Amino acid sequence: MKISNSASAKGADPERLQSDMGPDPMKLRHVVESQQFTVPVLMELFVRARGMERLVARGGSLDYQNRIMATVFYAPSTRTRFSFEAAMHRLGGHVLSTEQAQVFSSEIEGEQVEDSIRVIASYCDLIVIRHHEEGGAQRAAQVSPVPVINAGDGNGGQHPTQALLDLYTIYRERPLDGLSVAIIGELDKGRTARSLAYLLAKFERVKIFFVSPPELQMKPDILEYLDEHDVRYELESDLDRVIREVDVVYQTRVKPERVHDVKALKRFAIDSAVLQRMKPDAMILHPLPRTVELDKTVDDDPRAHYFRQAVNGLYVRMALLTMLLDKD
Amino acid sequence: MKISNSASAKGADPERLQSDMGPDPMKLRHVVESQQFTVPVLMELFVRARGMERLVARGGSLDYQNRIMATVFYAPSTRTRFSFEAAMHRLGGHVLSTEQAQVFSSEIEGEQVEDSIRVIASYCDLIVIRHHEEGGAQRAAQVSPVPVINAGDGNGGQHPTQALLDLYTIYRERPLDGLSVAIIGELDKGRTARSLAYLLAKFERVKIFFVSPPELQMKPDILEYLDEHDVRYELESDLDRVIREVDVVYQTRVKPERVHDVKALKRFAIDSAVLQRMKPDAMILHPLPRTVELDKTVDDDPRAHYFRQAVNGLYVRMALLTMLLDKD
Amino acid sequence: MKISNSASAKGADPERLQSDMGPDPMKLRHVVESQQFTVPVLMELFVRARGMERLVARGGSLDYQNRIMATVFYAPSTRTRFSFEAAMHRLGGHVLSTEQAQVFSSEIEGEQVEDSIRVIASYCDLIVIRHHEEGGAQRAAQVSPVPVINAGDGNGGQHPTQALLDLYTIYRERPLDGLSVAIIGELDKGRTARSLAYLLAKFERVKIFFVSPPELQMKPDILEYLDEHDVRYELESDLDRVIREVDVVYQTRVKPERVHDVKALKRFAIDSAVLQRMKPDAMILHPLPRTVELDKTVDDDPRAHYFRQAVNGLYVRMALLTMLLDKD
Repeated sequence: MKISNSASAKGADPERLQSDMGPDPMKLRHVVESQQFTVPVLMELFVRARGMERLVARGGSLDYQNRIMATVFYAPSTRTRFSFEAAMHRLGGHVLSTEQAQVFSSEIEGEQVEDSIRVIASYCDLIVIRHHEEGGAQRAAQVSPVPVINAGDGNGGQHPTQALLDLYTIYRERPLDGLSVAIIGELDKGRTARSLAYLLAKFERVKIFFVSPPELQMKPDILEYLDEHDVRYELESDLDRVIREVDVVYQTRVKPERVHDVKALKRFAIDSAVLQRMKPDAMILHPLPRTVELDKTVDDDPRAHYFRQAVNGLYVRMALLTMLLDKD
Repeated sequence: MKISNSASAKGADPERLQSDMGPDPMKLRHVVESQQFTVPVLMELFVRARGMERLVARGGSLDYQNRIMATVFYAPSTRTRFSFEAAMHRLGGHVLSTEQAQVFSSEIEGEQVEDSIRVIASYCDLIVIRHHEEGGAQRAAQVSPVPVINAGDGNGGQHPTQALLDLYTIYRERPLDGLSVAIIGELDKGRTARSLAYLLAKFERVKIFFVSPPELQMKPDILEYLDEHDVRYELESDLDRVIREVDVVYQTRVKPERVHDVKALKRFAIDSAVLQRMKPDAMILHPLPRTVELDKTVDDDPRAHYFRQAVNGLYVRMALLTMLLDKD
Repeated sequence: MKISNSASAKGADPERLQSDMGPDPMKLRHVVESQQFTVPVLMELFVRARGMERLVARGGSLDYQNRIMATVFYAPSTRTRFSFEAAMHRLGGHVLSTEQAQVFSSEIEGEQVEDSIRVIASYCDLIVIRHHEEGGAQRAAQVSPVPVINAGDGNGGQHPTQALLDLYTIYRERPLDGLSVAIIGELDKGRTARSLAYLLAKFERVKIFFVSPPELQMKPDILEYLDEHDVRYELESDLDRVIREVDVVYQTRVKPERVHDVKALKRFAIDSAVLQRMKPDAMILHPLPRTVELDKTVDDDPRAHYFRQAVNGLYVRMALLTMLLDKD
């Protein structure tokens, strides 16, 4: 593991360490972007997530019945909201929920997310926010006296907890060092692809293939980050050239209106023909929802892990909530 | 009771028995359509519902604090959703709730309810679904590892738990065998009327009058089912001809735009004049909400049971949830 | 305190006493309008609210885990809804929640709030209602077998729990008798301003300055009430003439489209220049959300109490819920 590397990265920005991680590097405060996680914090999270699997399996509960989580979504996303809310309920806690947080501000022009968050923080112990603008979660975290989790910000922002559950799904099956991963799809605006790339960069000898139509390729900020952290990557526009050698295929969807040649999208789809060319122990991941890029015939293949990802999201979010809610 | 009759009906379709009822005929798995209930299962449900009445009356709670129910509504219905959610809360359990489940799929064209349900089932112990398409609940049940309850599907589908609470309301007052029932309204698209007709067919010597404008009469599938089960029924377009002899008046509303002669609707309404022609011990039921077809002057009559129906819905749904959640 | 005065006011309307307060004047039944509170009931509420502060501070909970509150909002207001729901969760209770209660009635024309409330009351122990029509909460209270709280009705109605938390915020800092208060903004339609004026009238030697553009001044019903209760007030259109002498500045927002001269609004805004003319121990309150009428530069001034108001709303609503839910 690249512990020394990521430790020096943190050292380069002590202010961020202060604000995001608190004085104890194991103690999370807000979760805004995936690069703030160090390998030791990830391992602590994953160990707790394993414990949550066992807890849920035996129908147990934890002692959070006096804690309240607020899900503050400026745009609806039942999937992500349910995952966080189920996690809080499985811990025994309470939930305040809205999918139309813009109502806080729509009735008057110009209300700032900062005012809304300061008020909501009076009512709860933790805030999960989805904001339509890049940086919305960071603005919330700056004024909130209670922990804030970014559940997706803007179009080119991040979705760090999705990346955490993606990584946990891989971690449950194989070592993270030395991994070869194809990340496929609309990468320039892919929040989950971006957040996962940051996380993979924490580990040793990782190789990432970014596979997408050239006009939708990963943006330079991520590529520069990978360069700085000595992570090998390649930009590809042909899935067929990499499918035989990767350990993990991370598929995401592409909005058809964003490509010049819609028929070309077919070249990026996973179907039974592609399955035959993959390693026998490869893993197929997808954050869902899916469309044509992931055929239903793949569902019964043992390499399909995307429904398992959803379950893992519950465990990882339960674990994350405990790390943020536990007082020293 | 027609136990032998309904037992043979089950015998005719062993596959349905397998998938809907599990190996133990008393053990429900999914609740999709009301005809899947046998008389012994109905009696078990009603005995439990009576117990729930007593539990709520003494302010008690049950031991379901580690269980999560998800209400997944593709169209809003505060009334039905609140009834299910109150039932789960009265059991001590937790609830995930959405009235805009279509957001799971609207962001991409073509997401199937099957994918959404497989993900949501990761987060909860039971799913209550209202779907805009007939058969939506059945599709959900086919892929769900947790029990699914149909809270209304499509326009001509079913709403089995409404029929269960309707029947329970009658059961609390009088024997179900030998009952004479007028079912009034827009019967061709009436989910609750359809589901209730299936349930009434389980009992001996029942007679049903379907009272509606001819163009909105009950559809042949129900009538054929009643024929097969030797249930007597008549199609009527004049309430006045049956009102004196029925034990139960099950009123439902009619959308005015669906009848050729709106003034004719008046002939189907229940008001103080109609009350005078009814049996002194008759029961008036209505699934609510109501409009002109049920006058407010009826509310204070002892034969008005429609607000009692709403309370009974709580008890029946509590009972049903325990039957689905209890592990062997 | 004006106990004799308010007692005689109550004496003048024994029917109201009967319906709103129950036989025991300390026992609240419904909360519809702020003038129904007597000083002893207010003091009981505030003592309980202080206890709730301590309870929340030590992370404790109360014994309401078998009680259900329904928030029935005919128009969304995440802020008010979250405050009530957080209060119920902090008491350990359960919540049913909708921000689109109009769906109860929109599917049919003419469903009355009365029918909806009678059904919802079957599912819960207490109803919090926001209704778009003045008098909507009163109509709900008239038919509900469980307590109803008005969380805002109509445009010119009331919002009594907002006024209770406003008053509690003042009470925490200074005596209520002898208070000098400027109430600023769009007063003719200001539910919170109206409810607060009624409450202030309960105390001795209070002086109220209503500060607003003449076309938006407080309506005669309130002014007549103040006259009847011997409360001194002045109508002002220039904040500068009163800012030096008031103990409390209660700022509210003005919809720009409602004033003839938008630039004139600037004369009613609180900013750092206005701060310099205020008493050193004055309090600035605002029900939020804010816009130009309250500058962010005020936030760090020790006289700014508006974020404290939000926290106090939690304690006051917790206290109010216990007073309504506790059985004798």
